[in-house]
Amino acid sequence: MPSTDHSPAPGEPVLVLLTAGPGGAPTPRLADPAAPHLTVTDQGATRGDGLFETALAVADASGVFAMRKPGAHLGRLAASAAALLLPVPEAPVWEEAIAAGLAAYADANEVAEGDRLAVRLTVTRGPEVGPGEPPRPSAWVLLSPAARPDPAERRAGVRVLLLDRGLDSTVAERAPWLLTGAKTLSYAVNMAALRHARAHGADDVVFTSADGYLLEGPTSTLLISRRGADSARRLVTPLRQKGILAGTSQSVIFAAAQAEGWALGYGPLVPADLEGADGLWLVSSVRGVLPIRAVDGREVPVDQELTELLQGWLDADVDPGDHLTGDPVRDEH
Amino acid sequence: MPSTDHSPAPGEPVLVLLTAGPGGAPTPRLADPAAPHLTVTDQGATRGDGLFETALAVADASGVFAMRKPGAHLGRLAASAAALLLPVPEAPVWEEAIAAGLAAYADANEVAEGDRLAVRLTVTRGPEVGPGEPPRPSAWVLLSPAARPDPAERRAGVRVLLLDRGLDSTVAERAPWLLTGAKTLSYAVNMAALRHARAHGADDVVFTSADGYLLEGPTSTLLISRRGADSARRLVTPLRQKGILAGTSQSVIFAAAQAEGWALGYGPLVPADLEGADGLWLVSSVRGVLPIRAVDGREVPVDQELTELLQGWLDADVDPGDHLTGDPVRDEH
Repeated sequence: MPSTDHSPAPGEPVLVLLTAGPGGAPTPRLADPAAPHLTVTDQGATRGDGLFETALAVADASGVFAMRKPGAHLGRLAASAAALLLPVPEAPVWEEAIAAGLAAYADANEVAEGDRLAVRLTVTRGPEVGPGEPPRPSAWVLLSPAARPDPAERRAGVRVLLLDRGLDSTVAERAPWLLTGAKTLSYAVNMAALRHARAHGADDVVFTSADGYLLEGPTSTLLISRRGADSARRLVTPLRQKGILAGTSQSVIFAAAQAEGWALGYGPLVPADLEGADGLWLVSSVRGVLPIRAVDGREVPVDQELTELLQGWLDADVDPGDHLTGDPVRDEH
Repeated sequence: MPSTDHSPAPGEPVLVLLTAGPGGAPTPRLADPAAPHLTVTDQGATRGDGLFETALAVADASGVFAMRKPGAHLGRLAASAAALLLPVPEAPVWEEAIAAGLAAYADANEVAEGDRLAVRLTVTRGPEVGPGEPPRPSAWVLLSPAARPDPAERRAGVRVLLLDRGLDSTVAERAPWLLTGAKTLSYAVNMAALRHARAHGADDVVFTSADGYLLEGPTSTLLISRRGADSARRLVTPLRQKGILAGTSQSVIFAAAQAEGWALGYGPLVPADLEGADGLWLVSSVRGVLPIRAVDGREVPVDQELTELLQGWLDADVDPGDHLTGDPVRDEH
């Protein structure tokens, strides 16, 4: 049982702080998400210096929540921490905090099967410390009620703009300080790109590299379905080495597609590869599988059946675990 | 007089929150900098979504602090806010908050001439709000005692690495969503670059563009002194349009140099331009004028007399005001 200084109210988010205990090991503590918990010197707030993960938890028929693909999320969190040289809680501590948060939400609410929570894990570098002092990272889990998928939105799809991310596709390998593979808190550019898209008649963004490769969405991974010369189904995603995040949802969907006999492909991909596809999607943990219906104002085919198939694979929730690092196949199609 | 819920203690930082009042206009309020003031949903902490400025205040012989070049800092803050589409307090509100903070610090401390405070202005996008609700940005001024310049450090100089910033020099013009000219809170890459330098035997960094131009330091502007064919002194800095921040200290120093009859030059500059210089410096508001003594492990000349001259110009503190936007001269040397 976590210690608590707060009882969650129905319908409200649940916050679990991971506060360093006297022995140094962080312990989960329920706290009021509407109250302030961060100082103005926290390096998360002053420099975007930290990392995060956003996962989905879904309630079963008994009203018990389970977070999807915890291994993939905690594995990627550890990889981001390594890139940032940021000390973070160990996986069992996160698991305990997540379980405590899910239980606290369920205690405070009437839960129906299929209810959903967005589960955000965050670590910042914490307040500045003096030279030689140990770092005091801030870490927490925030669980927020999330809407059920909107079938109308899933049918309608999203309009995307292709926007230059400014980085060329080789930079990740030669410039690790650019943190391209880490899910850091420095998301101002991602947010500005989304605002730019919305101000220009679109809903979302697919970033491209400076040398013209397709990358990812600001908060999602790009998937493409096409048929090969042998007319076999093929599911394709941009090459991870090009400086994009390892997609946890993409990984789940790929494993299921492979089990169903689909061929898998990993970029490099260029905008011309969007032509002639059976379907394009942005996938992410909470929003799920969203079909793209227009790219830079040009309509593209939306295949509702394929969308439902991919969403079903994601919902089947086979945790890909921590095999997320590296692409199994490099596809120079 | 600002309202207060805190009396600053001697030697401690002073925090002035700009809290929205009932009428909507933010009013300064003294608060405890060691207490939490930000929620875990503040978009500064969750996405590095916000902006900042760091200025220097120095005490005069009467023990009265004045912040240097307020016009330049508030002008750049407004430019960052425009790039981020972020509503921020108006200049008079900042001026009132800064004055309140400086007075509170002076009240709580024995102040000697030349005492220094780092004055950090920060605005985040605040907590998430629902669709249609007005944004609730978090804004504050933090005033922290800063060490006097260390003459030994100024003589010794800093070793820098040239590190690729990953962006090419034309991207600022074609991709405004990359926010290259805004001083955002998304500084994870700047911090990672500094850690990389320190792990590789250097003290600081000069970023280069993907296409090979010199840019700036992670928290400073690059200055170069050289002699022209006519042996006239020439002070040169990278071209601002290449996607770097407008340097407030560079602007002050350039204005003074011009008044002294120096020629001024604005890039584009490449690493070869570092050869044959009389001196190289990183300049910033709080650390001042720091000579570079090695670039990628190769020693470069340090001219202590020139360093003192430039520092003197910076200390003379002629506020360049808001003429910071755009370079007056483009120099294709």
